[in-house]
Amino acid sequence: MEVIRSNFKDNLSKVCEAIEEADFLAIDGEFSGISDGPSVSALTNGFDTPEERYQKLKKHSMDFLLFQFGLCTFKYDHTEDKYIMKSFNFYIFPKPFNRSSPDVKFVCQSSSIDFLANQGFDFNKVFRNGIPYLNQEEERQLREQYDEKRSQANGAGSLSYISPNTTKCPVTIPEDQKKFIEKVVEQIEELLKNEENESLELEPCTGFQRKLIYQTLSWKYPKGIHVETLESDKKERYIVISKVDDEERKRREQQKQAKEQEELNDAVGFSRVVHAIANSGKLVIGHNMLLDVMHTIHQFYCPLPDDLSEFKEVTSCVFPRLLDTKLMASTQPFKEIINNTSLAELEKRLKEVPFSPPKVESAEGFPSYDTSSEQLHEAGYDAYITGLCFISMANFLGSFLSPPKNHVSARSKLIEPFFNKLFLMRVMDIPYLNLEGPDLQPKRDHVLHVTFPKEWKTSDLYQLFSAFGNIQVSWIDDTSAFVSLSQPEQVQIDIRGTDACLISFHLQVKAAVESLFVCCRAHVK
Amino acid sequence: MEVIRSNFKDNLSKVCEAIEEADFLAIDGEFSGISDGPSVSALTNGFDTPEERYQKLKKHSMDFLLFQFGLCTFKYDHTEDKYIMKSFNFYIFPKPFNRSSPDVKFVCQSSSIDFLANQGFDFNKVFRNGIPYLNQEEERQLREQYDEKRSQANGAGSLSYISPNTTKCPVTIPEDQKKFIEKVVEQIEELLKNEENESLELEPCTGFQRKLIYQTLSWKYPKGIHVETLESDKKERYIVISKVDDEERKRREQQKQAKEQEELNDAVGFSRVVHAIANSGKLVIGHNMLLDVMHTIHQFYCPLPDDLSEFKEVTSCVFPRLLDTKLMASTQPFKEIINNTSLAELEKRLKEVPFSPPKVESAEGFPSYDTSSEQLHEAGYDAYITGLCFISMANFLGSFLSPPKNHVSARSKLIEPFFNKLFLMRVMDIPYLNLEGPDLQPKRDHVLHVTFPKEWKTSDLYQLFSAFGNIQVSWIDDTSAFVSLSQPEQVQIDIRGTDACLISFHLQVKAAVESLFVCCRAHVK
Repeated sequence: MEVIRSNFKDNLSKVCEAIEEADFLAIDGEFSGISDGPSVSALTNGFDTPEERYQKLKKHSMDFLLFQFGLCTFKYDHTEDKYIMKSFNFYIFPKPFNRSSPDVKFVCQSSSIDFLANQGFDFNKVFRNGIPYLNQEEERQLREQYDEKRSQANGAGSLSYISPNTTKCPVTIPEDQKKFIEKVVEQIEELLKNEENESLELEPCTGFQRKLIYQTLSWKYPKGIHVETLESDKKERYIVISKVDDEERKRREQQKQAKEQEELNDAVGFSRVVHAIANSGKLVIGHNMLLDVMHTIHQFYCPLPDDLSEFKEVTSCVFPRLLDTKLMASTQPFKEIINNTSLAELEKRLKEVPFSPPKVESAEGFPSYDTSSEQLHEAGYDAYITGLCFISMANFLGSFLSPPKNHVSARSKLIEPFFNKLFLMRVMDIPYLNLEGPDLQPKRDHVLHVTFPKEWKTSDLYQLFSAFGNIQVSWIDDTSAFVSLSQPEQVQIDIRGTDACLISFHLQVKAAVESLFVCCRAHVK
Repeated sequence: MEVIRSNFKDNLSKVCEAIEEADFLAIDGEFSGISDGPSVSALTNGFDTPEERYQKLKKHSMDFLLFQFGLCTFKYDHTEDKYIMKSFNFYIFPKPFNRSSPDVKFVCQSSSIDFLANQGFDFNKVFRNGIPYLNQEEERQLREQYDEKRSQANGAGSLSYISPNTTKCPVTIPEDQKKFIEKVVEQIEELLKNEENESLELEPCTGFQRKLIYQTLSWKYPKGIHVETLESDKKERYIVISKVDDEERKRREQQKQAKEQEELNDAVGFSRVVHAIANSGKLVIGHNMLLDVMHTIHQFYCPLPDDLSEFKEVTSCVFPRLLDTKLMASTQPFKEIINNTSLAELEKRLKEVPFSPPKVESAEGFPSYDTSSEQLHEAGYDAYITGLCFISMANFLGSFLSPPKNHVSARSKLIEPFFNKLFLMRVMDIPYLNLEGPDLQPKRDHVLHVTFPKEWKTSDLYQLFSAFGNIQVSWIDDTSAFVSLSQPEQVQIDIRGTDACLISFHLQVKAAVESLFVCCRAHVK
């Protein structure tokens, strides 16, 4: 189901109901770009520590916009032995709410935009019809603005009403304004006497004069009359005074408060969906979901914290239970039987023996996706097949039970080992970011930090280290890389000092005659 | 006429023809944002020097994308006494050309995007179908890449052909490759002997091996055989060798070069239109066009130079003759009879006495715009009515001649005083940026630089300077502003030192009891 600004309010209760009734949720995001600095290969170095990876993504990926959010809810129907799913595809855009609301700037990366364009992505739905959002601090500020306006209205505000008993004593009116105020009071007295007229429009006047009028009337007419500031076509502000009884005044006040609350809700917009997901405490599935989680928190909750441990804390509040299908597919017992863990390939693989395709149907009134005509990289579709992958893998775990079970629920103990571990892309020796505690710290004695002339290619490094057998190279930048030797015990390097030393290599580069000295620094990560 | 990537090549000659035949051109750009830092009011301080304004716009406006470019050409038809116009609306997007081409990142400002969305702007046309472009340096680099590939092809390249006589001596083949190369040569000898087979596919091999093959064959078969590297479905590269005679080889080479030239032209894309405008030397009209000129140069020529004087030099190369209708309308004799110089208002005003609406018709086969159903903020439309404004104002100048003239051409001496002066938005005492020489340097002895607590509002400044009569306030940031006193001779301030002094004012702020000391520094700009 496609959700845009114009139908968001009408569909929100449907979304919340789907979340509430679900056994688990699957999510996916599409962004306006991936990296505003280094190339993706430098952004994801094979020997990043989890902290380094977090810092790089925070620095280079968060200025992009998450502009499509896919949510797919899965509810298990025991009688029919199948899942019922509801999929939502939200288009998101930080449309400024009013003049004082944040004017968000976001970056677009041409290659990412072009990629999405080739998938048929509809940018007009984002930029014309995207649902707005506020993070928690922005929501708080806006709420305060409304509260302030309301409390001002009790004395002198614009577009607001007088409550009785707000000013207990006469206001001091400057000498040069006395005549003006006296004239206003005369006009009002006339209005109150005259039974024919119900309201009175005053001449446009300055903000200071309007303040004096509000204060004077609040004191002179403690039982209340209805005072409202309006703006003319020429943008001049003027006051309208009308006779209302107590009941009518209260009714109007309540009406106004309800309208303000609605405006506030509209501004919070899509963040309300994220709050509903967070508050449900449901298991949330994603595929290679670290960036999705970071963007979701950054955009709808708060700017990302400075260090990884704080990020883990925030994440545990927003998403108490996460499961990454890419990490699951890369872990035993799946690792051995799944070669390619990219989402599209994984989905295909999991339809075949020893797995079985899950029984999933769209709920009534919800569109169904056809996995044979791929709509890959639409967030709602990606969330959907991520859910399918999870179901297949979870059910496969049931085959190890005795007696085997065909259905393994999202609440089963069997899947708990995969909770709260997010796949770390292209890291060679740390499979996941552990959200529930400290991260793995593999020994990296055999990983060398090597610097070299910028003309060098990977093949030059292979040549340099040919004596050490198989090596793995992780480029850092043009002139440095991590080189991992296959067997730590092979490292016969004389390491002076505790964590680093310099070794000189002598070699011939390409067919060139000159020989180069290369500095290799053993670097214990 | 709407021009997108798919119809750009077919329409380019039409565009060039329209430029060549025109008496003058009008342009307009739409951007993905205006300011990535300060608010627009801070970006355009009333007492900016032209250099300061240039620096601010360069720093805060150039990361946005010019994604719609309007061009309207006007040609005067003497026999019919009317202008014939052709309007073009180009959608522009830096679609990456290949893997090594720049992956442009650009910023979007939500308020600007929302503004355009409300005007019905079609973002899909930009992001899906936008015409690519290269600046001059990128074009040069791409041309070099092609040249390098071609020269490598004469020895060892990919997807390329051998020219005879390129390698005069046998290549040195490393010991471990000798067998491999010998086998390749045997296969080729067989191919040449065998009359039935026309071509031969070699097994996939490494880049180094392909290089050796190219070099060997170039030496062994100086009269040339056709050697080409192709890529298999599995992304493996392999060499195909075929028998071709001299003529066929030359034909294929030319074909290939033509194809490369076309690819290069496609990549240069929209920049070719800008080059055509520049090379025509025609008068280019714009409305409040400083940002349009800066973006056009920045995006299609070169990164903006560090200082204003260099920018003026570059501009004189790209746009030798510019005319800004907002500046024209703000100058005598128009200043007195035109109140509002915003484009839409100006266009309306210039239809009325003492002006006369110009006679302008669309050329055959070109769509016509209807000024009564406004399509404001579509670049092509804005360029069109900018042209209309210019014609009305130019013709009005003819009424001062004796005898009066109804038509004043774009080549008339009467409009020369308006050439190469770009309107400076919101600068109080410097009406324009002078592209042809040093800028005006008005006396600013009466302009004070004032700092104050951040709670202050404009009204507090009016109160502070109430003794000095009328003042003008230009906010710099929360705690400082320039205050201009109306009559320089009124300034009875004891100025110590040459350019600045400190004066203390003593005043009561609002109704507060405490008094504040305010520092005012006389600042001669």
